[in-house]
Amino acid sequence: MKIPEQLEEVIKHFSSFQGIGEKTATRFALSLLNWDKTRISHFSEAIENLLTVGKCPKCGFLAVENECRLCEQSNHRHTHQICVVESITDCMAIQKSLTYSGHYHILNGVLNPLMGVGPEEIGVEGLLSRIQERNYTEVILAINSTVEGDATCSYIRDQLPEKVRVERIGFGLPMGGSLEYVDALTITKALENRKQF
Amino acid sequence: MKIPEQLEEVIKHFSSFQGIGEKTATRFALSLLNWDKTRISHFSEAIENLLTVGKCPKCGFLAVENECRLCEQSNHRHTHQICVVESITDCMAIQKSLTYSGHYHILNGVLNPLMGVGPEEIGVEGLLSRIQERNYTEVILAINSTVEGDATCSYIRDQLPEKVRVERIGFGLPMGGSLEYVDALTITKALENRKQF
Repeated sequence: MKIPEQLEEVIKHFSSFQGIGEKTATRFALSLLNWDKTRISHFSEAIENLLTVGKCPKCGFLAVENECRLCEQSNHRHTHQICVVESITDCMAIQKSLTYSGHYHILNGVLNPLMGVGPEEIGVEGLLSRIQERNYTEVILAINSTVEGDATCSYIRDQLPEKVRVERIGFGLPMGGSLEYVDALTITKALENRKQF
Repeated sequence: MKIPEQLEEVIKHFSSFQGIGEKTATRFALSLLNWDKTRISHFSEAIENLLTVGKCPKCGFLAVENECRLCEQSNHRHTHQICVVESITDCMAIQKSLTYSGHYHILNGVLNPLMGVGPEEIGVEGLLSRIQERNYTEVILAINSTVEGDATCSYIRDQLPEKVRVERIGFGLPMGGSLEYVDALTITKALENRKQF
């Protein structure tokens, strides 16, 4: 095809996003051409500015020049609780629910020995030393219920001293979900986790 | 949510693409953070470079500083045929099929009087004067079969002198398509457009 290489370059970058094929990438690139010039420049600058964003060395959340908004506010939050998640997006999802007011710790994914991902790769050491230093008494494992997630939770629990209360988030029927359409394992969990009403 | 504003800015831009919601935009922005720094800079530059890309004043295809690759090559192509399409993506689709070797003209969409889109808005005037100047003898209307597309085709045909042969692309069963799943109108067209075998 005889399209300008400037456009081809942008298409190449867009199509490297997960779930974006060449057609969608082309659609994105062509729609950019309809933006006004200042908006294109702003978009370009915004992407360049991402270079200042990294990960907080303490909690693993997003940080700009090592200043993490979660850690900054940590004194205003419950200082005995720490919630462990496997990704930044999971942390953002919990923040959105507005129901948790303790600290967070974001791991680098979950254990996956078959793929060579061990405790070091996901940063368990940093979590353990942080729990010890800051004397957290309650660790909430908000890690998804996959085989790897389960293994990660067991591993972390076994590494923690007994005085620390370790909890895992509840599993069951999602709100608005229907028993008819939910899988058998979720129903099993929902029955196991029943509460007096 | 307590995410850095640098990231929020990028999310805002991504979510202005058609079909991209806040969640997907966030996923894109976070995946950018995992790219290495030079790649992020290249992406940013690539977008900035789009500012040099515009539309060819002659044919309406993409042009860099008014140099359009389609028009540059026009002498090496069949000079009596012109194919009229409603968008750059449609033109690219035809180019990909490698079966057409005449000239192209890209309209600015199709007529849509209810939305205030008349012949001037889609640039019919430019097409007509180009056909007259260059003495094209064959005009192929490769415009989609919507109500607006049909109206646009009729309008253009009526504006052209009788000596110009005006054709519309064929409609029928798509290759690999199954009569069982195709709509009634397509079957009607396929029967109308049958050919001796």
